[in-house]
Amino acid sequence: MKNKITKTNKKKKLLEKSNSSTIVLSHGDGGFKTSQLINETIFKYIKNDILKKFEDSAVFNCPAKKIAFTTDSFVIDPIFFPGGDIGKLSVCGTINDLVTSGSRPYALSLSLILEEGFHIEDLKKILKSIQETISEIKNIKIVTGDTKVVGRGLADKIYINTAGLGLIDNDIEISPEKIRNGDIIIINGTIAEHGIVILSQRKEFNFKTNLKSDCAPLNFLIEDMLSVSKEVHAIRDATRGGIARILIELAASSKTDIEIYEKQIPVKKETNIICQFLGMDPLYIANEGKIVAFVAEKDAEKVLGAMRKNKYGKNSQVIGRVLKKGDGKIILNTVIGTKRILDLHYSEQLPRIC
Amino acid sequence: MKNKITKTNKKKKLLEKSNSSTIVLSHGDGGFKTSQLINETIFKYIKNDILKKFEDSAVFNCPAKKIAFTTDSFVIDPIFFPGGDIGKLSVCGTINDLVTSGSRPYALSLSLILEEGFHIEDLKKILKSIQETISEIKNIKIVTGDTKVVGRGLADKIYINTAGLGLIDNDIEISPEKIRNGDIIIINGTIAEHGIVILSQRKEFNFKTNLKSDCAPLNFLIEDMLSVSKEVHAIRDATRGGIARILIELAASSKTDIEIYEKQIPVKKETNIICQFLGMDPLYIANEGKIVAFVAEKDAEKVLGAMRKNKYGKNSQVIGRVLKKGDGKIILNTVIGTKRILDLHYSEQLPRIC
Repeated sequence: MKNKITKTNKKKKLLEKSNSSTIVLSHGDGGFKTSQLINETIFKYIKNDILKKFEDSAVFNCPAKKIAFTTDSFVIDPIFFPGGDIGKLSVCGTINDLVTSGSRPYALSLSLILEEGFHIEDLKKILKSIQETISEIKNIKIVTGDTKVVGRGLADKIYINTAGLGLIDNDIEISPEKIRNGDIIIINGTIAEHGIVILSQRKEFNFKTNLKSDCAPLNFLIEDMLSVSKEVHAIRDATRGGIARILIELAASSKTDIEIYEKQIPVKKETNIICQFLGMDPLYIANEGKIVAFVAEKDAEKVLGAMRKNKYGKNSQVIGRVLKKGDGKIILNTVIGTKRILDLHYSEQLPRIC
Repeated sequence: MKNKITKTNKKKKLLEKSNSSTIVLSHGDGGFKTSQLINETIFKYIKNDILKKFEDSAVFNCPAKKIAFTTDSFVIDPIFFPGGDIGKLSVCGTINDLVTSGSRPYALSLSLILEEGFHIEDLKKILKSIQETISEIKNIKIVTGDTKVVGRGLADKIYINTAGLGLIDNDIEISPEKIRNGDIIIINGTIAEHGIVILSQRKEFNFKTNLKSDCAPLNFLIEDMLSVSKEVHAIRDATRGGIARILIELAASSKTDIEIYEKQIPVKKETNIICQFLGMDPLYIANEGKIVAFVAEKDAEKVLGAMRKNKYGKNSQVIGRVLKKGDGKIILNTVIGTKRILDLHYSEQLPRIC
């Protein structure tokens, strides 16, 4: 009899342990376990004056007349990868969208969709990574959040949405509309590493590489660029669809034709070899720490110099220039000396890269 | 031979048709099909000056010194239900979080996570519903968005995140901190309908009811309340966890003890019957168009009058009052004449209600 009780207790304890170490549906029902998850796990990593008020909306001062607002959902697979994880990525992605519009990151939201059975230890790792990235960026807070839970097999571990609010409190205006003939196009380093690393981790591919994702917050890099020039006309971060996609978008929205010198685009040797092996074009492969900037010719050297001094811009290069007003054509001067038009009809077809 | 070609063509056409009517992975890869989905489907319903610039961040004026910021992810099952759908819900949910903080809704973000195979016709219905809800709210725009696609079985059709930005351009401050002894607690109508309706649609339950979700945008209701009184101290919308959860949260954060008169809480007869049958407590069941307000005693009648004139407040009732400074106890005077303490240890255990 005693034995039986012990066994039952053991079973109960095991069950409790498994319940407390993984996400269960009641973590999402708005009751006791939801509060417990927020107070004992999430707030252990992310907490500040505004968040701890636990209100449905964060209320705070807005010391700027113009603001930038952006959102991104992150569904990356795998959630941990060389160079980062879904937590770092979800902060960097939104921060980079804010700073490329010339704004100073000010406030973030964080919304989690968790799959039943997801390990709370993994959630903690992700929250820690979010906290570390926030610290690196400085002067930004997560001010509002949300947590939802879905049943097993209705998500893949964790999806994260971050929305961001930036302040524009100077006279800088960065927008494709400001792109002019003769603008010099600059990139802040080697491309395609994020996409290749994610690919290398997937079951379908599963190859070995020493590459790491370039996932990084670029707020200080862009601050450095803007501190030396008022003629940075447009900046865009080259995520999904690679630098090809954003060049195509920027050329189209600024109604200009541009030319790109393929030879000058920084690509690591290893990236090139893997791309050749897989038959993929690095221009279309995702980055998470790369921007393309359009700068007035007279300031290009100055901006390039400032970029190269920043740790996220050491390998900055001029990769092209704006030719003339046009219909958004992109002429690629290829490494083999030919010319071809870049368009979106070729695509990497790689889902869940961010 | 001709026949063979025709057959192949037919097959190809069928394949194309199926591809064009459902979400495929390449809708999420940042390439041609992503642009096509955004331009030909999403922008057909949701487009404005800011959104059409297609920038990573929306940049706009902020004509207020204080702002409110909130986020919510919606994972509701089913996505269409009597009284609403995930589109209407995702707009109302965020709008209501903004207005309960006393802010005027100003800008929204919209981020979609779509499952491979999801019907584009259903996406269109949801987008139309979003557009209609936006029109009802007035003076608000979706200014920034994001679309991600995950493989089959890695989401349940569609998940939506909305983040919202509200302006606080008056001297009104609505916050649990402002709750005072003697405050009257008011609700704007019958409770628990949203949760019951969602339950009725689930396979595990699948019972018939004439109830509809109360999903509604409450911006004008709250505008009406604030126009007659400067002594509306706190407002909270009673979603997940029902009115019990928000009463518990508000009592705790304002460090007051409150009493609730169960008899005065408006509950439809049908809701009560279903709750009794299922053994559930309507106080813990989700609403999507109900707020609980804490109002200074002297203004309570005035506020109640204003609420009852609004279509979303016709059945408004006083349901309780703040007794004294305390440790957040909630005394429920039950319909059967007893007293009990409300706490979060009871929970409806109903996932994916919003």
